[in-house]
Amino acid sequence: MASLSTCPPLTRDSVMQARQLIRSHIHLTPVLTNKTLSRMASTPRDPAAIGGRTPARPTIRLWFKCENMQRTGAFKARGAFHAIKRLQQEPGWLEGGGKEKGVVGYSAAVHFSGNHAQALALAAAEDGITSRIVMPTTTRPNKIVATKGYGAIVVFSGPGFSGREAVAAEIVAETGARLVPPHDHPDVILGQATVGLEFQEQVAEQQQQQQQNSIEEGGGGRRRQKGLDAIIAPCSGGGLLSGTALSCEGTGIKVFGAEPEFEGADDGRRGFYSGARITAHNQTPNTVADGLAGAVSATPWGLIYERGLVSGMYAVTEEEILSATRLLLERLKMWVEPSAAVPLAVALYNEEFRGVVEREGGEEGWDLGLVVSGGNVDVDGMAKLFS
Amino acid sequence: MASLSTCPPLTRDSVMQARQLIRSHIHLTPVLTNKTLSRMASTPRDPAAIGGRTPARPTIRLWFKCENMQRTGAFKARGAFHAIKRLQQEPGWLEGGGKEKGVVGYSAAVHFSGNHAQALALAAAEDGITSRIVMPTTTRPNKIVATKGYGAIVVFSGPGFSGREAVAAEIVAETGARLVPPHDHPDVILGQATVGLEFQEQVAEQQQQQQQNSIEEGGGGRRRQKGLDAIIAPCSGGGLLSGTALSCEGTGIKVFGAEPEFEGADDGRRGFYSGARITAHNQTPNTVADGLAGAVSATPWGLIYERGLVSGMYAVTEEEILSATRLLLERLKMWVEPSAAVPLAVALYNEEFRGVVEREGGEEGWDLGLVVSGGNVDVDGMAKLFS
Repeated sequence: MASLSTCPPLTRDSVMQARQLIRSHIHLTPVLTNKTLSRMASTPRDPAAIGGRTPARPTIRLWFKCENMQRTGAFKARGAFHAIKRLQQEPGWLEGGGKEKGVVGYSAAVHFSGNHAQALALAAAEDGITSRIVMPTTTRPNKIVATKGYGAIVVFSGPGFSGREAVAAEIVAETGARLVPPHDHPDVILGQATVGLEFQEQVAEQQQQQQQNSIEEGGGGRRRQKGLDAIIAPCSGGGLLSGTALSCEGTGIKVFGAEPEFEGADDGRRGFYSGARITAHNQTPNTVADGLAGAVSATPWGLIYERGLVSGMYAVTEEEILSATRLLLERLKMWVEPSAAVPLAVALYNEEFRGVVEREGGEEGWDLGLVVSGGNVDVDGMAKLFS
Repeated sequence: MASLSTCPPLTRDSVMQARQLIRSHIHLTPVLTNKTLSRMASTPRDPAAIGGRTPARPTIRLWFKCENMQRTGAFKARGAFHAIKRLQQEPGWLEGGGKEKGVVGYSAAVHFSGNHAQALALAAAEDGITSRIVMPTTTRPNKIVATKGYGAIVVFSGPGFSGREAVAAEIVAETGARLVPPHDHPDVILGQATVGLEFQEQVAEQQQQQQQNSIEEGGGGRRRQKGLDAIIAPCSGGGLLSGTALSCEGTGIKVFGAEPEFEGADDGRRGFYSGARITAHNQTPNTVADGLAGAVSATPWGLIYERGLVSGMYAVTEEEILSATRLLLERLKMWVEPSAAVPLAVALYNEEFRGVVEREGGEEGWDLGLVVSGGNVDVDGMAKLFS
């Protein structure tokens, strides 16, 4: 990782610079709309399903940013490429044999979804930098093969997840390699943040196109073009959420975080409303959204809570996550991991959030962006979830 | 259906006109590339997996036309919208109360995947035309709800599939409605053919973009820009395959058909190489590619075989289809029905086809387009396929 003293400040301008740095290495992933899902989101829930309460009546036009189609199958490629590019800008790093000493990474995910590790391996390989990825010996063989396939040296840390950081630290001490943490570093956050910039631009362009088509068809195109009103991003370590929020700073676009509530995985939400970050889980939450089982890190927390860039945090049940996953598969026709469906679950099922949209969006409603964060799940895993 | 005497001739020019007619009603579906899948297609197979033969060594750059993202989840929307638009051009149809008399349809698929029926219901509803869809009483409730949801009147034909055509004929006799068959009509074929036109244009545009990027990055951009060399489309009744072939007539782009071989579902292939169309199956093939279980109809056959617009027909096993489906899900991140994966299965696993690419494509290889025909499968059905 580039030394903190060389890092750009955490501002929207720095996000724009990050985008220039990684632009040619990442995909401009598609932004999709879907009439059926927007109609569902704009339909009040059955009172019987929400304990007899009066349901919220929000008007929601959904926009989906498909990071499942990003390189390596997840938004993590953004942070990894940015970290690698920034490292090469650090004075003396290259001259000191940086490429050979290389980088070290381990996955952010407690259950090793492996998204960060694979992204780091790819980003390092493309610039001819050695990468070492620390994995538990219990990692599924296909994940090991995939990580090696991206050009990494795989180092095993034993059967559990607890030893990963210690093994990574040993490698750093022995080889002089740089650690690239999965979320707790400005360069990683600035990289993930680029997803928010693209999202804002793509929605604005598509709204303009819709307006144009509507006028050509005699529809008058009356709706005000205003871009997104809000974005929901999933939250685990907080890199994606804090980055998205940073990309919206000063734009008027509100940013919300989405988490599973199962077994306390909603640490971000609980910390947010109690005023103090929850730094670790007593026991790893065994949620279907396994990419979101981690706890929020310090640097992301600074943006999310202390700088007030996130407007609210919401949690959903396992059943709601599976239901939203099913809708993304069957209706959006996108192959997604359950973690990527958590924002849609909030938009469809969280009455508290839906009440906010009703109150703040009024009759015109909201153009609501959802970050579909990744698609790294295999068919067998998916089949098990729904069997 | 518009009277045959009023139909445009089956030419590429008519396909262009069809496109103008339906343009604002259908999605311009995305065309994707995928490095991993192209690399797999360009890797010779393990001789052990192909009976010890010497494997073909083709060079293949794959392009995927994602009709799973078409309205109603399949290319069938094209033919349905075109049929409905053409009907309204028929002199006297509107004045004779055509909209109220309406249209009648039934699904092409022997197992009622329902793609044609739902597309017809939507296309009719958008122009205020009554539609009646004939379905077996054994159709799954969610399919019935979905078809009604598109605005159709559902008429039941009894428990099996045999009575569908008779019930449709009765409705026509009683109400004066027009039958819109799933593939055996020029208007339907011309509608499906529009997928081929879009595919040709989108690949040419993207190649130009790639070339441009390559020059900007100093790569020289040496590869000759020549658009697609060939397209593989799935074949059941033959509407999509014959339409795709028609859209390529005179362009030099070769078109191939892909079928499951299980239980004789490769009727198109067998007819193609024996010189006579196989008009029906003795017993419905129970293939995982259930959208491709039907036999080729007369009008498509005229284009495919008699006019010689299709260069070859290839069949693949159930295992190969499931393997290709898995790759489209996990690698392309697209939710597809198994029928949509049959062209990829041919490109990856059919040695005969791969030998053609090796011989004809030579060292430069082929830019090969695959029509990903639809994505109408539910999670439970998919889970069952892979459990």
